[in-house]
Amino acid sequence: MVNVGIIGYGYWGPNLVRNFFAAKDCCVKSVADARPERLQQLEKVFPSIKGVRNAEEIIYDPNIDAVIIATPVFTHFKLAKKALDEGKHVLLEKPMTSSIEEAEILINLAEQKNVLLMVDHTFLYTGAVQKMRQLVDNQDLGNIKYLDSTRINLGLFQHDINVLWDLAPHDISILNYIVNERPYSVNSTGITHTNNGIENIAYLTVNYASGFIAHFNCSWTSPVKVRMMLIGGDKKMILYNDLEPTEKIKVYDTGYSHSNDEEKNRVLVDYRTGDIHVPKLETTEALLGMANDFISCILEKKQPQSSCHLGLDVVRILEASNKSIKHNGQEVVLKSANLPVLPNVQEILI
Amino acid sequence: MVNVGIIGYGYWGPNLVRNFFAAKDCCVKSVADARPERLQQLEKVFPSIKGVRNAEEIIYDPNIDAVIIATPVFTHFKLAKKALDEGKHVLLEKPMTSSIEEAEILINLAEQKNVLLMVDHTFLYTGAVQKMRQLVDNQDLGNIKYLDSTRINLGLFQHDINVLWDLAPHDISILNYIVNERPYSVNSTGITHTNNGIENIAYLTVNYASGFIAHFNCSWTSPVKVRMMLIGGDKKMILYNDLEPTEKIKVYDTGYSHSNDEEKNRVLVDYRTGDIHVPKLETTEALLGMANDFISCILEKKQPQSSCHLGLDVVRILEASNKSIKHNGQEVVLKSANLPVLPNVQEILI
Amino acid sequence: MVNVGIIGYGYWGPNLVRNFFAAKDCCVKSVADARPERLQQLEKVFPSIKGVRNAEEIIYDPNIDAVIIATPVFTHFKLAKKALDEGKHVLLEKPMTSSIEEAEILINLAEQKNVLLMVDHTFLYTGAVQKMRQLVDNQDLGNIKYLDSTRINLGLFQHDINVLWDLAPHDISILNYIVNERPYSVNSTGITHTNNGIENIAYLTVNYASGFIAHFNCSWTSPVKVRMMLIGGDKKMILYNDLEPTEKIKVYDTGYSHSNDEEKNRVLVDYRTGDIHVPKLETTEALLGMANDFISCILEKKQPQSSCHLGLDVVRILEASNKSIKHNGQEVVLKSANLPVLPNVQEILI
Amino acid sequence: MVNVGIIGYGYWGPNLVRNFFAAKDCCVKSVADARPERLQQLEKVFPSIKGVRNAEEIIYDPNIDAVIIATPVFTHFKLAKKALDEGKHVLLEKPMTSSIEEAEILINLAEQKNVLLMVDHTFLYTGAVQKMRQLVDNQDLGNIKYLDSTRINLGLFQHDINVLWDLAPHDISILNYIVNERPYSVNSTGITHTNNGIENIAYLTVNYASGFIAHFNCSWTSPVKVRMMLIGGDKKMILYNDLEPTEKIKVYDTGYSHSNDEEKNRVLVDYRTGDIHVPKLETTEALLGMANDFISCILEKKQPQSSCHLGLDVVRILEASNKSIKHNGQEVVLKSANLPVLPNVQEILI
Repeated sequence: MVNVGIIGYGYWGPNLVRNFFAAKDCCVKSVADARPERLQQLEKVFPSIKGVRNAEEIIYDPNIDAVIIATPVFTHFKLAKKALDEGKHVLLEKPMTSSIEEAEILINLAEQKNVLLMVDHTFLYTGAVQKMRQLVDNQDLGNIKYLDSTRINLGLFQHDINVLWDLAPHDISILNYIVNERPYSVNSTGITHTNNGIENIAYLTVNYASGFIAHFNCSWTSPVKVRMMLIGGDKKMILYNDLEPTEKIKVYDTGYSHSNDEEKNRVLVDYRTGDIHVPKLETTEALLGMANDFISCILEKKQPQSSCHLGLDVVRILEASNKSIKHNGQEVVLKSANLPVLPNVQEILI
Repeated sequence: MVNVGIIGYGYWGPNLVRNFFAAKDCCVKSVADARPERLQQLEKVFPSIKGVRNAEEIIYDPNIDAVIIATPVFTHFKLAKKALDEGKHVLLEKPMTSSIEEAEILINLAEQKNVLLMVDHTFLYTGAVQKMRQLVDNQDLGNIKYLDSTRINLGLFQHDINVLWDLAPHDISILNYIVNERPYSVNSTGITHTNNGIENIAYLTVNYASGFIAHFNCSWTSPVKVRMMLIGGDKKMILYNDLEPTEKIKVYDTGYSHSNDEEKNRVLVDYRTGDIHVPKLETTEALLGMANDFISCILEKKQPQSSCHLGLDVVRILEASNKSIKHNGQEVVLKSANLPVLPNVQEILI
Repeated sequence: MVNVGIIGYGYWGPNLVRNFFAAKDCCVKSVADARPERLQQLEKVFPSIKGVRNAEEIIYDPNIDAVIIATPVFTHFKLAKKALDEGKHVLLEKPMTSSIEEAEILINLAEQKNVLLMVDHTFLYTGAVQKMRQLVDNQDLGNIKYLDSTRINLGLFQHDINVLWDLAPHDISILNYIVNERPYSVNSTGITHTNNGIENIAYLTVNYASGFIAHFNCSWTSPVKVRMMLIGGDKKMILYNDLEPTEKIKVYDTGYSHSNDEEKNRVLVDYRTGDIHVPKLETTEALLGMANDFISCILEKKQPQSSCHLGLDVVRILEASNKSIKHNGQEVVLKSANLPVLPNVQEILI
Repeated sequence: MVNVGIIGYGYWGPNLVRNFFAAKDCCVKSVADARPERLQQLEKVFPSIKGVRNAEEIIYDPNIDAVIIATPVFTHFKLAKKALDEGKHVLLEKPMTSSIEEAEILINLAEQKNVLLMVDHTFLYTGAVQKMRQLVDNQDLGNIKYLDSTRINLGLFQHDINVLWDLAPHDISILNYIVNERPYSVNSTGITHTNNGIENIAYLTVNYASGFIAHFNCSWTSPVKVRMMLIGGDKKMILYNDLEPTEKIKVYDTGYSHSNDEEKNRVLVDYRTGDIHVPKLETTEALLGMANDFISCILEKKQPQSSCHLGLDVVRILEASNKSIKHNGQEVVLKSANLPVLPNVQEILI
């Protein structure tokens, strides 16, 4: 049995409480939130859980084994560090931290303390993403060539993070979960329509040495909600529409290959279009899957699917996107890429 | 009556012939194509039109007033120049030319010869684009803030131009037709999945000094066909889905505005969502509208809606996108922007 | 303050408890269900509500003012009669009773006892139905000519009632709420694919003396879920798609009228198609609106929107449909129609 | 080589001419239409075809082998009879004739004259219908249980036939092509909103002895166009949406079966939902397939897929629907059913 405390009972907190309540081998002991009205809400629905005003009451509670942090991003590092210092297992909401440096410090600390540090990239636990990973792993798509994601709607403008940090972690975590190759570099452009300098529309290209490319289109200012991702391989392609109630994943027996037309000295491209297959997906709640993964990885000392390393890789791309936007879309090469620098590239290293 | 000759009877040629056949005050005299089987096709459907093997037979025909050029882009300049030199009016298929320089030479020549030079950006003549322009001109959208366009499908890989030159002219011409402000700069990224260096997936951001932003997502390698554009104003927003048979344009009574929260020292954003309006659109064939515009502008010595200046502005953005892709997405400032260079921008001028 | 007891904690019960919990001037005292596991569920979520095994414990509880009956249809009459006899206000789940006779007895009894008898036709309290009624009442549609409803999916086969009694009450209640004219007669056909004689697919036509017509298509055996209704007037028409998250109601500026072509001795029909309007709808939960209507009508001695008379009219059509199906689709004239019998109609009176 | 003449150059005529022009072993000699402006149209597009004012000029032309009749339904019988008397092969537009009797006379006459009599039920030659038939024939759906069709839009009110005769022939021909069992009886209801007694909205149920059921919903007065058919088997189900550009046919791995719950004395129903499969369909033009079938069946003395017997069966159901509507929806048993009359059925034989 793992005793958990949850810090932050805002928009996402109730979902976390409900699912950790339902998780196996887990007991939700207390929830911290500075706002009395939120604690009243908590008590009404979960009278068995103790509400506390201060995060420290959870972090320093000796009866608590694991701390779940669901507060604004800029507070993640400080809270997580304290909890890790106390030897607690920690689950951080996405995005993991405000910077690569913070994430690396936490990862080292968790290793040192021999506790679990995990990030809640809930989407990885959906039937849709599990199915996509399986299709890619089984080579059903052939060599994958691109990922193209659109996540736009009329959304709550955040005050501390831009639209990429708010919306893209979902899609970048899926990218990192499905694609094994490490990205080489990042380009990003965007615009702010307020006077606080925080982008409400932004575009992100992630470049890979192999020729794979990923692109993300995020906006808080679209009149329509779109949650769409294309993953293209040379054998098959996937359309993932998260708003579809029953047909989230469509697998197109569509591909293309090229050869050289010796005679005309040009490239010939062959297309193929065929049947479409809509696999039935697991419908268990993703957040419960995440909660169970966290608890069982603590008990069995394993690495979770949504690991801190994946969480760090998401932050790596986000931090690089910030740098690229500030430099008017210039390419930012990811240090982690560990690749020989390509010639004649005017680059910014991150 | 204007006598016209059409050079090129490939994919688009038959549509041009059919519509110029139907246009007012116009007589299609001859069509040139080097391929005998294409001319046979022509004769079967239009026995009254003369088929010729050589473009010169049209350009130097004294009975022909206007030449329509529907050949691959790289041939546009040479053919158009000859025709203008002969004092013919010229209609060029989109994109106008392979470079800004070529377009500028042709524009100067047409002015000098006092003949009409026009580019066939057919989309401008659709009921949908006419309605969008009217909504923007009437200030129904308020101040427009962004345009976001996706034009993807499983398409014919071109051998001479990349996917932006092939697909984006439609959307860039709409952008230029609807938005009065001149763009400041361009960022573009993309990838080629063949070994000929021609991008089959590409992304383009067009930046404006006012804070307006435009983005284009083009691909020849999508399993699904998408033809979607969002235009957002602070008062209303438009969703333009060209694949919808009857609801191509939806106008959302959706907007956002911001103010400063003095107390908390942060920006407050107000959203508004309301009714949706789907205006009935004109359903006359766009290509016929374009043909009639060409003929009547010749006869009445006016400038057409799809003018050579608009055509040049499209090429300007395309050429800049090429340069940006080659420099790994770096910002390329458009010379035409006529703006003081912003400080600390590492830029490429075009 | 009205103290209520709820009989039946099956599929719908938890929704009723939750919404009466949230309703104004209302206190949910106890819930009855014969199944211990259902009462355990209740206690977990609503520890403040008393769970009892027997309906009588609610009906004869002097502290309870109003009884809500959410049990299978065939038990409605007996339970409601007991509760009315005790002077309780009664809310019945839809459909109200198994027969016209039962409904009429309950209505008379409630009148005699001077208590409220209401039926939970939840859909009447949705933003969509309220908007449709408003459009019809305002004569926006002109003279309404037809209503066409499809409600199909892969559903739970019921053991005591056929698919019309299960699914059509929603749509018939909307029909009765929106259309003032009383129906003249009913035709119904259907089929059972089990050996218990209970139709799992059925079709229902409701005929009106004025020429208005309504049609209902219900099935438990469709691979896709459809919840669609068309309401056509001679000036405008409505498409109501309940599965649309944001565009449930579309108002088409479409109509038709006819005149006589004297010359050719035939009827000329004029069509008109125009813009489409998608009104923004109220998004408050319909069930809460229903609960508040029940409570406030008790306190203020008013008639609710979803009255027992409307509930009876729904049962009237359902009972007639049964009779028509048994007589192979023959027309069944509704006694309530109070119309002179049309000549040469071979009819069954109900 | 078969020489054909076409009578009627209205809405459908140009499509017939174009496709018989393209058909193998076929020569379109002449086209008859009483309206000079239609013949002018013909000459413009097909200068090689002779336009004549009078049907007799085709029927009595000794150089013509086969006559195609594309005139209003009420003229079919007279024209076809004359042509068959002359020993011509005949293709009739759908519906075949105005009555069962007329169709039977023509069929007998064609047999006697040893010529081909065929009906143009074009839909049978679409990739979608071919695929559905194949799926049913292969037992992929298991035992089929129902067919449910909706074909509605804002359409041209016909002056001589009601909406079922106008629109339902498409769907009834598909029903007859796919389902082997002969229908037992028909119920139909409808309404006219003009004063000419011709229904513009109508509903049709076709009953079968086995428990299979088919239903058709037709309207000329819907604001939206719907062309949808469901075919349900106990193993799989098909959704056929003819308006879908690329996913016309979806095959749902969805089924249901029942057994008796001995203990509770009731029926247990098992559902199953699984993957969805969207087969790629043939995209050749259906009308060309029909034309080729007509010509090759003349040359090879075979029966076409869209035979006169299938055409008669369509008329059988339509005539019965007329009778049922006139008798307020009463069941009309089809004589052809060749079934022992079920007891206590008050029926009308047709």
